[in-house]
Amino acid sequence: MTAPLFNRMALIGVGLIGSSIARAARAQGLVRSIVATARSVETRARVAELGIADRVVDSNLAAVEGADLVILCIPVGQCGAVAEEIAPRLAPGAILSDVGSVKAAIVRDVGPHVPAGVHFVPAHPVAGTENSGPDAGFAELFINRWCILTPPEGTDPGATDKLATFWSALGANVETMTPEHHDLVLAITSHLPHLIAYTIVGTADELEQVTRSEVLKFSAGGFRDFTRIAASDPTMWRDVFLANKDAVLEMLGTFSEDLATLTRAIRRGDGDTLFELFTRTRAIRRGIVSIGQDSDTPDFGRPHEKLPPLPRPYMADGE
Amino acid sequence: MTAPLFNRMALIGVGLIGSSIARAARAQGLVRSIVATARSVETRARVAELGIADRVVDSNLAAVEGADLVILCIPVGQCGAVAEEIAPRLAPGAILSDVGSVKAAIVRDVGPHVPAGVHFVPAHPVAGTENSGPDAGFAELFINRWCILTPPEGTDPGATDKLATFWSALGANVETMTPEHHDLVLAITSHLPHLIAYTIVGTADELEQVTRSEVLKFSAGGFRDFTRIAASDPTMWRDVFLANKDAVLEMLGTFSEDLATLTRAIRRGDGDTLFELFTRTRAIRRGIVSIGQDSDTPDFGRPHEKLPPLPRPYMADGE
Repeated sequence: MTAPLFNRMALIGVGLIGSSIARAARAQGLVRSIVATARSVETRARVAELGIADRVVDSNLAAVEGADLVILCIPVGQCGAVAEEIAPRLAPGAILSDVGSVKAAIVRDVGPHVPAGVHFVPAHPVAGTENSGPDAGFAELFINRWCILTPPEGTDPGATDKLATFWSALGANVETMTPEHHDLVLAITSHLPHLIAYTIVGTADELEQVTRSEVLKFSAGGFRDFTRIAASDPTMWRDVFLANKDAVLEMLGTFSEDLATLTRAIRRGDGDTLFELFTRTRAIRRGIVSIGQDSDTPDFGRPHEKLPPLPRPYMADGE
Repeated sequence: MTAPLFNRMALIGVGLIGSSIARAARAQGLVRSIVATARSVETRARVAELGIADRVVDSNLAAVEGADLVILCIPVGQCGAVAEEIAPRLAPGAILSDVGSVKAAIVRDVGPHVPAGVHFVPAHPVAGTENSGPDAGFAELFINRWCILTPPEGTDPGATDKLATFWSALGANVETMTPEHHDLVLAITSHLPHLIAYTIVGTADELEQVTRSEVLKFSAGGFRDFTRIAASDPTMWRDVFLANKDAVLEMLGTFSEDLATLTRAIRRGDGDTLFELFTRTRAIRRGIVSIGQDSDTPDFGRPHEKLPPLPRPYMADGE
């Protein structure tokens, strides 16, 4: 006979990520029971209604009581204070983890509060959608996505392995790296793209020469792609930029230089520089598709309606 | 009895757009016959093989002979020279159109070559995918997308109406505006997004601290969205930036200012400025979805696999 990997998993925060973990862990039989809590009474009520946890409690302390896996699924900026609050009640031998998009700040803010005998293994599942809240989650979210673990030096390798096993069972590929390297990698693969998307959507919204209605109507020319990630959770993303300031500013600096080079090429009518870059970038897309990190269906597989049956009002009379 | 809207449609260039027009026009019975040509012998052979035109000819002059609708489906930079070449052979009363993403340059480059008695009605269907070539086209591409017509002053309204009817029958919504306004609107809804996507993909590809393999693996954090439009046709896009230089530079200027403001907010730890913008941009996404210009399925509806049946190697032995 086999038993679940963990006896009791406590989720602090049940948004898109927390609720996806709950659904997937239950679907895979990875935990005997799930206790969840959330800051707002509305979210707690909704989680209870959805039935994705075995128990919904109204305090962080009550949630972690007796749990052998505790996952903070809250914005990065709140993790330090919550860790301080729950520390006294964490069970000896428990694993404490998180899902934050920034890792050095988490190690800095959470680490000092972790009691001896509790294993702190920060994690970041690189997965998500533009939606937020407990209803947005689904069990398949982590399949074939990467989950990055950044155990601080001295972490019990057994605890890291156990958390890696957990994430693998949710469908993820697991990789371990230092928090600092994680923050650099994510600055370019996630944080800068979000910042740029937010910026251009804001720019389009404030133009005097082009109306908002025109921006919306003609957005299929490329703009609409950016609006998806610019619809991501504002609190989460504010915290990401504040917590990963240095790496984001570094990537922003490089990006701005590259943009200046292209701007100059356009101003000078230097088509060769443009053509060279536009040819090179195709290879990156092919690489992403070939390793299964995006679909090769054109236009992300957006649905297309069928042509309507011909009303033929536009037909001229013939002989 | 009714007759098709046009007797013979000539397509010069049969890439994503040209081949989609051919497929959709035939599906809707809009034209009695389709004559197509393309610059490369490979493309012509492939078009013949696909059978999407009634006749494939090997010169532009042969293609336009006797056609009452001629559509240039080639990069913007080539339209002037092709117009000059075909002008002597255009049939009196024919409509000459195009599908270019820039309109003032088309009016400037093509307009002077149009013979008296031929109706020049520039058009831009705001639709596409990241794929190129005759195989990439499909009949449903234009459904519920906008097609913008920019008839120069003095154009016969009957010709404009007839072309609008044609595009409506392909499934598009049709709007008319000046070439100059078109170029400003598309600079923000299409050209700048492409330029930024190309830039960031190039930036990511040249980093020293983050390997290409890491960029690909962790691209689901947001970056992969940008790679799709950065995989668009290089020749087409080089021409767009050269032909719409002024409007693109203007939008780039505004975008760069906005990016500088956000950079400063991050540097100063000003979370309120970030939060305010990130909240505002959500409304734009909702607007685009509500008018049917994008799907409300999370993550563009990208497919998610099912969780694998439990191999349960990660289960501990229980009692």
